[in-house]
Amino acid sequence: MIVYEYFRSSAAFRLRIALNLKGLTAERRFVHLAGGEQRQADYRAVNPQALVPYFVEGDFALAQSLAIIEYLDETHPDPALLPVDARQRAWVRSVAQLIACDIHPLNNLRVLNYLADELKVDDEAKTRWYCHWINEGFAALEKMLEGRKIQSTFCLGETPTLADICLIPQVANANRFKCALDAFPTIVGIHRHAMTLPAFHEAQPSRQPDFPKPLSTPET
Amino acid sequence: MIVYEYFRSSAAFRLRIALNLKGLTAERRFVHLAGGEQRQADYRAVNPQALVPYFVEGDFALAQSLAIIEYLDETHPDPALLPVDARQRAWVRSVAQLIACDIHPLNNLRVLNYLADELKVDDEAKTRWYCHWINEGFAALEKMLEGRKIQSTFCLGETPTLADICLIPQVANANRFKCALDAFPTIVGIHRHAMTLPAFHEAQPSRQPDFPKPLSTPET
Repeated sequence: MIVYEYFRSSAAFRLRIALNLKGLTAERRFVHLAGGEQRQADYRAVNPQALVPYFVEGDFALAQSLAIIEYLDETHPDPALLPVDARQRAWVRSVAQLIACDIHPLNNLRVLNYLADELKVDDEAKTRWYCHWINEGFAALEKMLEGRKIQSTFCLGETPTLADICLIPQVANANRFKCALDAFPTIVGIHRHAMTLPAFHEAQPSRQPDFPKPLSTPET
Repeated sequence: MIVYEYFRSSAAFRLRIALNLKGLTAERRFVHLAGGEQRQADYRAVNPQALVPYFVEGDFALAQSLAIIEYLDETHPDPALLPVDARQRAWVRSVAQLIACDIHPLNNLRVLNYLADELKVDDEAKTRWYCHWINEGFAALEKMLEGRKIQSTFCLGETPTLADICLIPQVANANRFKCALDAFPTIVGIHRHAMTLPAFHEAQPSRQPDFPKPLSTPET
């Protein structure tokens, strides 16, 4: 399997966590989003939507991080990333979608570019936009988490699910933009706990081969 | 089961199609989004995220249209809304998510309100924004559809799936905002075909009990 990705893409971050949890190794191909590589003809020929991650397995190609992760979960079921119980599974999916549909798309690079380039929104207003949607989504999510009826160190239960796979990259984004998370102690606690696991820790942007090296660090 | 919804919400439109396809009847409660009813304490107590649709079944409550529809598909499997084959199922989910993650959230009412109220974006620029994200998403989707390897009158095959359930309301939105769809003949063809089915036709906004009656129509 081949995965097209970018260190900072939080949708790619999700997929890296899922692959790590399942102990799967993909051939990794890096597309430099901030440099506009995704809009070049080479990558458009791979994925016409010009987004990452993109998954290729033989003659089968697939976009959309959640669809890819559920496909991996069905084809490599151990460990499961969704609960067995239909209601619990639905709840986990709803958390994943709260993040993947209601927060992340609004703060995606292409949207921030549109705000700046087309609507002439300045950096301060762009950061307010960014944190606004995180705040709206996390406020609802924190309430959902408070209402859980089972003991949980992750979003639901004691093992990571698709919900955590979406939440942890979203918290990393919130931290990068310095959005206040004081009102969301449950979310912050899940993030802190998950990042102690190698599957999450090793998937973060700063641990990826395409993460830019600081100029002051001598090559060794 | 109870469904909180609004005639114009395209996420609610998706759920109405799914219920119709499965022959399920829910108790329907209408939340007037354009009037701001979703932000009032009454509805916040039901769904803290203040969005529709919202699904309640006994003591189980669920947000997110795709999570709700997959839950219904698992608990009421006939007719299936996802193919049996893992790759086909993943592809259908990726089409659904292209719409539900990459188009629809950017054009949601709360986002259009933020553009107008916080960023002082005028109506013309708002419509450009609206059609821009539809155009980006549909261009990629049209290519995906052109690449299909099986005979299809719907997004994949001869029966409606989760992909069509997402696509048809998105085309309705595009038409409402008069976005040009000439470049997307496959999408337009699927929409035309699907709307001949009662499950889709009866789910459209204008057929809902909370659709505003024209003032000129005498009550009968």
